[in-house]
Amino acid sequence: MQALVKRTAGPGLTLTDWTDPTPGPYDAVIKVAATSLCGTDVHIYRWDEWAQRRIHPPRIIGHELCGHVVEVGREASLVNVGDYVAAESHLTCGACFQCRTGQAHVCKNYKILGIDRDGSYAQYVALPEGVLWHTAPEIPPELACVQEPLGNAVDAALAEDLTGHTVLITGCGPTGLFAAAVARTAGAATIIASDVSDYRLGLAKQVGADHVLNVRAESPEQVAAAIIEMTGGEGVDAALEMSGDPTAMHQAFRAVKNGGRVTLFGIPTGPVCFDLPNEVIFKGIRVYGITGRRLFGTWYRLAGLLKAGLNIRPVITHSFPLREYATGFELIQSGQCGKVVLIP
Amino acid sequence: MQALVKRTAGPGLTLTDWTDPTPGPYDAVIKVAATSLCGTDVHIYRWDEWAQRRIHPPRIIGHELCGHVVEVGREASLVNVGDYVAAESHLTCGACFQCRTGQAHVCKNYKILGIDRDGSYAQYVALPEGVLWHTAPEIPPELACVQEPLGNAVDAALAEDLTGHTVLITGCGPTGLFAAAVARTAGAATIIASDVSDYRLGLAKQVGADHVLNVRAESPEQVAAAIIEMTGGEGVDAALEMSGDPTAMHQAFRAVKNGGRVTLFGIPTGPVCFDLPNEVIFKGIRVYGITGRRLFGTWYRLAGLLKAGLNIRPVITHSFPLREYATGFELIQSGQCGKVVLIP
Amino acid sequence: MQALVKRTAGPGLTLTDWTDPTPGPYDAVIKVAATSLCGTDVHIYRWDEWAQRRIHPPRIIGHELCGHVVEVGREASLVNVGDYVAAESHLTCGACFQCRTGQAHVCKNYKILGIDRDGSYAQYVALPEGVLWHTAPEIPPELACVQEPLGNAVDAALAEDLTGHTVLITGCGPTGLFAAAVARTAGAATIIASDVSDYRLGLAKQVGADHVLNVRAESPEQVAAAIIEMTGGEGVDAALEMSGDPTAMHQAFRAVKNGGRVTLFGIPTGPVCFDLPNEVIFKGIRVYGITGRRLFGTWYRLAGLLKAGLNIRPVITHSFPLREYATGFELIQSGQCGKVVLIP
Amino acid sequence: MQALVKRTAGPGLTLTDWTDPTPGPYDAVIKVAATSLCGTDVHIYRWDEWAQRRIHPPRIIGHELCGHVVEVGREASLVNVGDYVAAESHLTCGACFQCRTGQAHVCKNYKILGIDRDGSYAQYVALPEGVLWHTAPEIPPELACVQEPLGNAVDAALAEDLTGHTVLITGCGPTGLFAAAVARTAGAATIIASDVSDYRLGLAKQVGADHVLNVRAESPEQVAAAIIEMTGGEGVDAALEMSGDPTAMHQAFRAVKNGGRVTLFGIPTGPVCFDLPNEVIFKGIRVYGITGRRLFGTWYRLAGLLKAGLNIRPVITHSFPLREYATGFELIQSGQCGKVVLIP
Repeated sequence: MQALVKRTAGPGLTLTDWTDPTPGPYDAVIKVAATSLCGTDVHIYRWDEWAQRRIHPPRIIGHELCGHVVEVGREASLVNVGDYVAAESHLTCGACFQCRTGQAHVCKNYKILGIDRDGSYAQYVALPEGVLWHTAPEIPPELACVQEPLGNAVDAALAEDLTGHTVLITGCGPTGLFAAAVARTAGAATIIASDVSDYRLGLAKQVGADHVLNVRAESPEQVAAAIIEMTGGEGVDAALEMSGDPTAMHQAFRAVKNGGRVTLFGIPTGPVCFDLPNEVIFKGIRVYGITGRRLFGTWYRLAGLLKAGLNIRPVITHSFPLREYATGFELIQSGQCGKVVLIP
Repeated sequence: MQALVKRTAGPGLTLTDWTDPTPGPYDAVIKVAATSLCGTDVHIYRWDEWAQRRIHPPRIIGHELCGHVVEVGREASLVNVGDYVAAESHLTCGACFQCRTGQAHVCKNYKILGIDRDGSYAQYVALPEGVLWHTAPEIPPELACVQEPLGNAVDAALAEDLTGHTVLITGCGPTGLFAAAVARTAGAATIIASDVSDYRLGLAKQVGADHVLNVRAESPEQVAAAIIEMTGGEGVDAALEMSGDPTAMHQAFRAVKNGGRVTLFGIPTGPVCFDLPNEVIFKGIRVYGITGRRLFGTWYRLAGLLKAGLNIRPVITHSFPLREYATGFELIQSGQCGKVVLIP
Repeated sequence: MQALVKRTAGPGLTLTDWTDPTPGPYDAVIKVAATSLCGTDVHIYRWDEWAQRRIHPPRIIGHELCGHVVEVGREASLVNVGDYVAAESHLTCGACFQCRTGQAHVCKNYKILGIDRDGSYAQYVALPEGVLWHTAPEIPPELACVQEPLGNAVDAALAEDLTGHTVLITGCGPTGLFAAAVARTAGAATIIASDVSDYRLGLAKQVGADHVLNVRAESPEQVAAAIIEMTGGEGVDAALEMSGDPTAMHQAFRAVKNGGRVTLFGIPTGPVCFDLPNEVIFKGIRVYGITGRRLFGTWYRLAGLLKAGLNIRPVITHSFPLREYATGFELIQSGQCGKVVLIP
Repeated sequence: MQALVKRTAGPGLTLTDWTDPTPGPYDAVIKVAATSLCGTDVHIYRWDEWAQRRIHPPRIIGHELCGHVVEVGREASLVNVGDYVAAESHLTCGACFQCRTGQAHVCKNYKILGIDRDGSYAQYVALPEGVLWHTAPEIPPELACVQEPLGNAVDAALAEDLTGHTVLITGCGPTGLFAAAVARTAGAATIIASDVSDYRLGLAKQVGADHVLNVRAESPEQVAAAIIEMTGGEGVDAALEMSGDPTAMHQAFRAVKNGGRVTLFGIPTGPVCFDLPNEVIFKGIRVYGITGRRLFGTWYRLAGLLKAGLNIRPVITHSFPLREYATGFELIQSGQCGKVVLIP
C-alpha cells in the first residue's frame, strides 16, 4: 500500500510503498477513506524537540481517520467487514484506576495512534476493534474523519452545560471552531470568539459566533471591555481556552464572571504565570483541564450533536489527495485554513 | 381599574371595576400588558374541590404576566417606573432552609400570585419588587407574559443536560410544547413528542419535535416499539412527563434507557402505581420532581434561551381582550389551543 | 471439590462432590475463603416463581465471595496465583451503550454469578479476571466476602454526598445496616434507622444509627412526627429505602425534606402506588434507582471506606462451615441475624 | 463599651472606650462572647499595603464571632433577644446575578465585617439579622466563634465529596487544620498534611491526619515520592491548597492523580507560574477557586458536621481576654499556634 512515513529521525515525511497491515486477533483493518491533519503531525513533520523525544522511526503517522472495515481478526466480534467507522486515537490500558472508573481519557498508560503505533496516513490501517466507532452513513468522509478532534471540542465546550449561557472561545484553530459550532448547537445565549486571524474569525462567524474579536487589533483593556459589553455587564458564564496563548488565557480568566468556569484545552509552550487571587480564587470559579475524549460518552454525544444539526462543514476548508500532503502541511502552518483533510 | 375577579365561592369569574392596587414600601405597581391562562386558573374558574379549599374570594386571579412599572414603593430600589417586567409568581419566605440554600423554588412557606394574593387578570397589579424580572424590550408582551410557565419547562427539560441526547416528551399542553422548544434549542439529538391530540402534536412539530406519536391511536406496545426504533434500539436518555396521565407516565418510564432520567412535571389527579423494580430500580435511573422555577437561575437561563433563538411563538395560539376571557376558558378546556393570552 | 448445588428443579440444595472448575484463557480459579448468603439465594433455595423462571439446574449458586487465586488462564494478566481477591458478581458485556459510557452496573446484557454461571458456594470457583478485586490482606475473609453487597449499600448511601446531612434508612437487613455504617463513616449529621425488628435495630445502633424506630410499634403519623422532631423540624436530606416494603417507602418519601433525595434499593414484590404530587413533584426531590455497584468506582470507594474505619463487623453476625448451610438459610429466613457467612 | 480600634492610618490597634452600636431596623446587637483572630486582621494590625488601601480608620476590626442577641431592630423578625448566634462576615448585595442564583459567596458587591463596617473586637456589635446564624447551645463560644473560617474549610474540603477518597492538604494554618478535621469526619480514606512547621503538623495529627510531611525537610522529589507511596502508587483524589505558597501549590498539582481535583484557597502574594500541560491539562483535573462560604448551605452543613463529631477543639490553641490582644497578634505571627480567640 501507499503510506506517508517518517522514515528516519529528521524533518519531513516520505510517501512510499509499505507493507499492508495484518490484523491481530481482536483487530480490524480499515481502508482509510479520509484522514485529517492535526497540529501534532506538524510537530512530527518539522521534527521539533518534542517529536525527537517521542517518535521512533520508521512510523506511519496520522490519527484522525474514517473508512471501511476490510478485514477482521479471528476473535473480533464488534465490527464486520463493510462497516463505516472512525477511530478513537487513544489506545487505553483497561487496567488502571482511571480506565476502571470511567475515566479512560486520562488513562495512565495509553498509546497513541500514529505515534506509538502505525497511523492513518496510509491506504490501510489496523486497529483494535474496541477503538472503532460506527459512523452514520450520511456523514461524508471529510466530516467523519474529524470526529476525533471534534470530540476534544465537545469535552471542552460541554465540561458544563452551555444551554442558555454566554461563552467566550479564545483561539479559532480547528478545535476552537468546532467548539464554537458545538456551543451554537447547544443553545449558547451569546458566543464570542477571539483570535489573531481575520480569516479564522470569518470561519467562526460561519459556525455561529455572535461576536468576533481580533485581539491583535485591540488592547487587553479594550478586549475585556468589549466582552463585558457583549454580555450585558456580566462577563461570560464559560470561557473555553483553545489557543494555548498566555495572553488569551488571561483574557479568558478576566472575562469569566464570578462563579463561572474556564476550560483549558490549548497547550502553551512554556510556563504561564497567574494572578491567582484575582483570576481564580476570589472569583470562585472552576477550571477544567481537557484532554482527549471521554470513552465513549463523548463519541455518543457527538453523534447526537451531528443529528441535532451540528454545522462543522465550514471548518473543513481543504481536501487533498494523500500525495499532496506537503501542500497541506504548508497550509496548516500558514494559518490560512481550518481543518485540512487528506484522501489516500 | 377593570379586573377579572372570583367574587363569591362558586363557578365562573366576574369582569368588574375594582380598586387600583397600592404598593407597599418594597412593592411596584405594574400596568399589565399581557397575562396568560394557566390550567390552575381553569380549576378556579370551574370551582372544583381543590379551588374550593384553596381560594378565598374575593380574589383577582391570574399569575402569568408582563407589563410596565408605573409606580414604586418608597423603599424599592431594584426597579424604576417605565421598566418592562415579567414576574415570578411564587412569593417565597426568604427564611426557611430551602430559601437560604438556593432552593427557594421549594420554599416551605411560599404564597402564590392570583391565589394567596390578588393577581394579574386586571389592568394593574402590585408586586414585591424582588419577584420582578427585567425583560428584553424585543420580546413582545404575548411572549413575555409566558415566561413563568416557560420556566417550568426549562427546569423540566434541563434538570440534566439535553445537548446531543434523545428525549421523549409525554404530553403536549403548553408546558410540554415549551419543553420541546427548549429541547430543540438545547441541541437534543432526537425529540419525540406524544399526546392524544393531533392538533397539539402539530404544534409539537412546529416547535421542533422530530417525531410525534398519537398515543390514542396505538397500543402501549406499539408506542414502546416505535420509541425504541426512533432511538436506534436504545430508548431515550431523558423522558419528560408533562401530562400527569398514568398511561403516559408508564410510557415515559418504559422508554427511558438504563441509566437515563425521567422528570415528573405533570400532575396526576389520583394515585399512580408503579412496577418499581422494572420501571426504576433495575434501570438505575434518576427521577426528578419538578415544580416552580429556580429563583432566579431559571429566569436568567430562559433569557439566554430566548437570545439563542428559542422558538415559542407557535405555542401562543390565541390572544383575546380581557373582556373575552370566557372564550379563552372555553378554548383551553377544548384542548384546541396552545397558550391563550389575555390583553387587559 | 465440594459444592452446594441446585441439582434439580425444586426446593432445597445439595452438598455434593463436583468437578473442579477449569479456567478459560482470561479466567482465574479462586479457592473460596468465605462466601455469604444473599436474599437472592433464599429465593433459589425455596424455589419460588422467580427462581423457577431464572435458574436452570444443575447450578452451583452463591455470588458473594473472597479467596485466593490458585490458577490463572493462559492469557490472564491482571491477577497472579496467591492474590487475595473478592469478586464483582455482574459479568457485563463490555459492548453496550451503558458499558461503553461508564455505566456497566446497568449493562443491558449482564450475567450473574451463581445464577447464569456456577457460583461461589463451593471450594473453588472460576471467574473472568476482570471481575476480581484485589483486597487488602488485613481485611479478614468474613468481611472481604461481603464487599459485593456492601457495594450496593455504598451506591445507595452515596448517590449524593452524606457528609453533614441527615439521613433516614428504612429497612435494616444487611444492606440497610451496611448503609448505616457507610453513613456513619461519611459523617452524616443524624442517622435514623427504621425496621420492624428490634434485633436488627439493635445492630443499627451498633453500626452508628443515632435514632432507631420500630415502625411496627408506631402509626405512620407517629413515625413521621418522630422523624420531624429528630431533624429539628426539617425532615431528612436523604432517605435510603432498603426494605422494599410499601409502608416504609411512603415513610421515606414523607420524611424527606423539599429538595432532598430518596434512593430506592429495596425490591417490592408488587406494584406500589404513590401520591406523586405530594410525595415527589411538589417536593422537588430527586429519586435514584440503585442496582448493582459502579464498576469499579464503587469498589475503589469501599476500599477507601474500609481504610477510613468503616465498621461493618457487627453486621456479620454468623459464620458456619459450608456443610451447615441449612442452618444459615433458616437463620436468614427468621430475621434474627445480620449477614450469614459460609466457610467452604 | 470597650473596643479594639484602628484609630489612625498606621500600625497597631488601640483598646479604648467606644460608643455602643445602635441597630438599624433590620439589625440585631450581639454581645460578643468570643471573637477569633484571622490572618486578615494581622495585615490590618501591621498596616501593610493592602490594609492601607482597604481600611478607612477609625474602624473596629474583627469578623469571626459569636455571642448573644441583646437588642433587635424594629423590623427584625428572624432573631430574638437571647439567641445564641455566630455571624456570616460577608454582607452581600442580594441583587446581583450571583446573589440571585444561589452564589452569594461570590457576590459582586459584598461588604466585609470589620473592614467595611465596624467589627467584632468589641463588647458589642450590630449586624443585619440576615447574617446571623443560630448556633447549638452545646457549642462553647471558643468553638462557635470560628465557624466563619471553618466554613471556608468546609467549602475547600467538600468542593467534591471526600468520603472514601485520598486527600492532600498543603498548609496547616487554622483553615488547613479545619480542612483536615472535615476530611476526617467526612470519611477520607487517607489524609496527608504538609507544612513547614512541626508544631502545626502535630496539630494536624491531632485532628486526624494519617500522614504528615514537613516539606522543609525534604526535596520536592522526596515529597512527591512519599505521597505516591502513601496512596498505593496512585496520587491523591483531592489536593486542598491551603497555604498560598507556590512550592506547596506545585506539590498539590503534582500529587493529584489524573482526573482528580485541586482546590485553591491559600492566597499567594505574587504571581505563580504553572506548567499547565503537565500540571492541569494532560491530567484532566478540575481546579476550584474557593472563597467565602456558601450562603447558607455551608453553615447548615457545618452544623451537621459538628453534630457528626467534627473535632476542631485541638485547633483552638489559645484564648485571651480582649485586653491581651497584643499577645495574640504576636503568637499568630510566630506560627506557634492554631486559632487564637479573644474574649471581650
